[in-house]
Amino acid sequence: MKIAILGYGNLGKGIECAVKQNSDCELTAVFTRRDPSTVKVMTPGVKVYSVDDILNHKDEIDVLVICGGSATDLPKQTPEYAKYFNVIDSFDTHAKIPEHFANVDDAAVKSQHTALISCGWDPGLFSLNRLYANCVLPEGKDYTFWGKGVSQGHSDAIRRIKGVKDARQYTVPVEDALKKVRACENPELTTREKHTRECFVVAEEGATKEDLARIENEIKTMPNYFADYDTTVNFITQEELDRNHKEIPHGGFVIRTGKTGWDRQYNNVIEYSLKLDSNPAFTSSVIVAYARAVYRMNQKGDFGCKTVFDVPPAMLSMMSAEEIRAHLL
Amino acid sequence: MKIAILGYGNLGKGIECAVKQNSDCELTAVFTRRDPSTVKVMTPGVKVYSVDDILNHKDEIDVLVICGGSATDLPKQTPEYAKYFNVIDSFDTHAKIPEHFANVDDAAVKSQHTALISCGWDPGLFSLNRLYANCVLPEGKDYTFWGKGVSQGHSDAIRRIKGVKDARQYTVPVEDALKKVRACENPELTTREKHTRECFVVAEEGATKEDLARIENEIKTMPNYFADYDTTVNFITQEELDRNHKEIPHGGFVIRTGKTGWDRQYNNVIEYSLKLDSNPAFTSSVIVAYARAVYRMNQKGDFGCKTVFDVPPAMLSMMSAEEIRAHLL
Repeated sequence: MKIAILGYGNLGKGIECAVKQNSDCELTAVFTRRDPSTVKVMTPGVKVYSVDDILNHKDEIDVLVICGGSATDLPKQTPEYAKYFNVIDSFDTHAKIPEHFANVDDAAVKSQHTALISCGWDPGLFSLNRLYANCVLPEGKDYTFWGKGVSQGHSDAIRRIKGVKDARQYTVPVEDALKKVRACENPELTTREKHTRECFVVAEEGATKEDLARIENEIKTMPNYFADYDTTVNFITQEELDRNHKEIPHGGFVIRTGKTGWDRQYNNVIEYSLKLDSNPAFTSSVIVAYARAVYRMNQKGDFGCKTVFDVPPAMLSMMSAEEIRAHLL
Repeated sequence: MKIAILGYGNLGKGIECAVKQNSDCELTAVFTRRDPSTVKVMTPGVKVYSVDDILNHKDEIDVLVICGGSATDLPKQTPEYAKYFNVIDSFDTHAKIPEHFANVDDAAVKSQHTALISCGWDPGLFSLNRLYANCVLPEGKDYTFWGKGVSQGHSDAIRRIKGVKDARQYTVPVEDALKKVRACENPELTTREKHTRECFVVAEEGATKEDLARIENEIKTMPNYFADYDTTVNFITQEELDRNHKEIPHGGFVIRTGKTGWDRQYNNVIEYSLKLDSNPAFTSSVIVAYARAVYRMNQKGDFGCKTVFDVPPAMLSMMSAEEIRAHLL
């Protein structure tokens, strides 16, 4: 299966690594909006091209992995490239998924390509687990906790504060809330009760005590991002940040509790959790598995836009149906 | 969707309860090998028939749930009834799945029915999680732990010992082994290191101290069942057993740990766990969700034998594709 990458940031690099771990996949090209001569990839022999040249490589690509951002890139890129390629993206603006789906579906159906949107772990594997758990426990309650992990959006928000040189923010699930959920207490949890926010901040050189107090206050009172949470702010040096906080770990928990039995007398807990040293590397691994399914669905004549909900699990595997049944069932 | 049950034991009763929780399902009949007049079901208006009359009810059944045992019932029943009905079973003799699949597939393809075998949580949801985790982490290691829960097979084995009136056996995962797995230590675990076995035994009246010692020894040295485990034996009264051990809880953990990153420098842990107050009630809930998919696949002309690996997750849901995307993705 010939994979190409559009956009070589953290996710694009992750895709490159994941392709290397899947023996039926081959990276054929990387496309970038930057000057291609400034982009160095890790895989020997793989060339970097300008995105403007992408249509010249149509026949060398089974699935194009689009690694843009959800805010402005993907809403344009995925429908556009679905005209020419089988595509997959990790669009994660939950509220706009129906609109994005419709646009991509329209393009892919017309061009007889197969597209898969919103792939990764949330949306992605977490969504799958919400669906499965809802189907097997129709009467129950869903909970999703994230972390402990780095939120890029929250880290960026801190960096925009005057006097902040660098920052890293961790989202941390509240252990006591998890405990109550697992005990089938069906708690109604406020935002504050579910997660705390832990910030590591490098102030610009020469910051006074008053500067630090102002920064801390601006973080803790920032609407949407921090005001509704218990937030701790730790000022550290750039060296400390680079040494201890350079990776992008993440993870989380999807839990559904529900009742079974004639009188709903039985409690059940279904829990799915991830603990990931690198969020983009793992997200990429999920995407490459689904790229395999996209390619296979296209070969079967199954065109249009799909999500993880539409993919028979066997299509993700390098193993044959017989092998899967014999070894994994 | 019209569901019928063949075999009214713990699982059959569970199916009846699960049907009640799924608003698009209706229980149309229960079939039994016993004298139907001796079988009382819970759902008002539902009749119990002899299995000999089942073909007279062909048109009233969308999916037949076959609730027999894996040792001798299902290998005969599922291929036989797949000639006349869409069927689903919970065949769980892992080693014989390929043979069972081939027999059922043959019958279902010929008769243009859809069958799904080995449904439940293991095989079933645990299998799915093994597959997904293997696909997204091609380089890694799988672990399955069961419990804490009642093993019917082990309880039966104890009951066959001379001088034992009743017994209940719990399989318990070893916490320290789970800890090592979650820490990505990739331990090679022996049978003894993964699970312990906890037995609650009612001796026949008048048992002497020597009888109890013999029973305990026979349990602990029983090949295959107990000899390879650290086993504890507790003698209790029948009243105590009935009061504290009458339910059939179960559960377990499927964990895959694996590496991502260019130099495999990142660790990842994918963990799926179940905690179930009643094993048969939960297994039944899974089966009813998959019965929905069996019916839908049949309506789409997708005939033959399937497993959970072949079912697009969306097919399990009462919600529409749009609703799922909007609410669960």
